[in-house]
Amino acid sequence: MTMKLFRTPASPFVRKVVVTILELGIADRFEQIQTRWPHSWATETVPFAPDFAAATPVGRIPALVTEDGMRLTDSQVICEYLNAEYGGHRLLPPEGPARWRMMEAVAIANACLEAQILRRAETLRHPPERSDAFIAKMQARGLRCFAALDAMVDRFGAEPDLAQIATACACGFVDWRYGHDAWRGTAPRLGAWYEGFRQRPSMRATEPAETPQ
Amino acid sequence: MTMKLFRTPASPFVRKVVVTILELGIADRFEQIQTRWPHSWATETVPFAPDFAAATPVGRIPALVTEDGMRLTDSQVICEYLNAEYGGHRLLPPEGPARWRMMEAVAIANACLEAQILRRAETLRHPPERSDAFIAKMQARGLRCFAALDAMVDRFGAEPDLAQIATACACGFVDWRYGHDAWRGTAPRLGAWYEGFRQRPSMRATEPAETPQ
Repeated sequence: MTMKLFRTPASPFVRKVVVTILELGIADRFEQIQTRWPHSWATETVPFAPDFAAATPVGRIPALVTEDGMRLTDSQVICEYLNAEYGGHRLLPPEGPARWRMMEAVAIANACLEAQILRRAETLRHPPERSDAFIAKMQARGLRCFAALDAMVDRFGAEPDLAQIATACACGFVDWRYGHDAWRGTAPRLGAWYEGFRQRPSMRATEPAETPQ
Repeated sequence: MTMKLFRTPASPFVRKVVVTILELGIADRFEQIQTRWPHSWATETVPFAPDFAAATPVGRIPALVTEDGMRLTDSQVICEYLNAEYGGHRLLPPEGPARWRMMEAVAIANACLEAQILRRAETLRHPPERSDAFIAKMQARGLRCFAALDAMVDRFGAEPDLAQIATACACGFVDWRYGHDAWRGTAPRLGAWYEGFRQRPSMRATEPAETPQ
C-alpha cells in the first residue's frame, strides 16, 4: 500500500508537504503524481484528470489519498496527519502549550504562503482584470507576516518542525517569485536563520520550478 | 483573565469560532471585539485599529489573543485550541482514525468557506477588475465541496463536532449571500441535515449580518 500525493514543483504548499515527508524519512510510502496547470487556473476551473478529481473535491494541490483511502485536501491537515501517524509527533507536539506556541507561528507562515499564492494568481490575470492594489495588499500582508516570524526566530530549535518548514517554504517562494521583495530588510534575523535551514537536504531536494502547463 | 476575539457578524470563519465557543459553553471567557471593514477590503489594506494590528500580523478576522497572550490567527487553529484546552476534545478527537476522518470533512468545509469568501471579495470589485470567470470558478468549487459533504452526512452524529460546525457555517453563508445557488439540488441529504442543525441555539445566536463599515 502506498499513499498518493498530487503535486507540482511550483507550489509552496506542496513543498511544505514534501519537506515534511523527507524530514520524516517516509518518501518510500508515496506515489507522487505530477499535475498540470495552465496559467488560466488563476481565474478559471481548469480540466482535472480523473484521478485528481477523485482525490479532491476542492481541485487544489497538494491532495493526499491515504493508505486506507481517506482524501486529505489541505496542506496543513496533510502535514499534521503525517506527523501524527508516521512521525511520532516529532515535528509538532500532540498537545499542550508547546503545540499551541508552535501553531501560533505555523498559522502566520501559512497565511504568508496564502498571500503569496493569491498575489501570484493576481499577477497571472490579464489587464484590465488585474488589480495592482490587490497585489500591493498581498505583498504588504506577506511582509507583516515575515516581520512577525522574525520576532519568533528564537523559538526555532536545532531540529526541524512544522513551524520552521512552513516558514522556510515562505522564504523560498518569495525569493523565487518575488526576488526584488526586500523581506530580509524587514526580517533580518529570519533571513539569517533561513540561510542555514535552506541547506538541509529536504530543502535542496525541493527547490521550486515552473509547473508543467 | 479573558480571551480577546476580534470578529464581525458577516464572516463565516468568525461564525465557526463563535458557534464552537457556544457549543463548548465558554462564552463568559471572551471579550468579543467588533471590527470595521469598508468594502475596499476586497482589494486594499484597510486601516487597522491598534489593538487589532497587535493581535494579528495577517490582518484578518477571526483573531484570538489567549489568556497567556498567544496570538492565534486562523479559524481552524482557534477552534482546535479551544476544543483541546477548554472542551476536553469533545468536538474533535485528539488523535487516531476518528480525528482524521473528521478532519477529512473539516478540510472540505473550510475550503468551501474560503471559496465563498474569495467569491465575495471578487463581487466587491468594481468593473473592469471584476472577473466573472473567477466568480464562476469559486461557485463551482463550492458546489463540488457541498456534493462531497453530502456524501459524508452519514458520519455526522447526534452531538455537534467541528466538521458539522464548519459545514453548517458554509450552508448558512451560501444561503445568506448567494440564496439563488441551487446547492440543495446538488446536496439534498446535506440540505436536510442542515435544516435540523441550523435550529441549534448556537446557530440561531449567530445568524449572519452585514459588517459595520
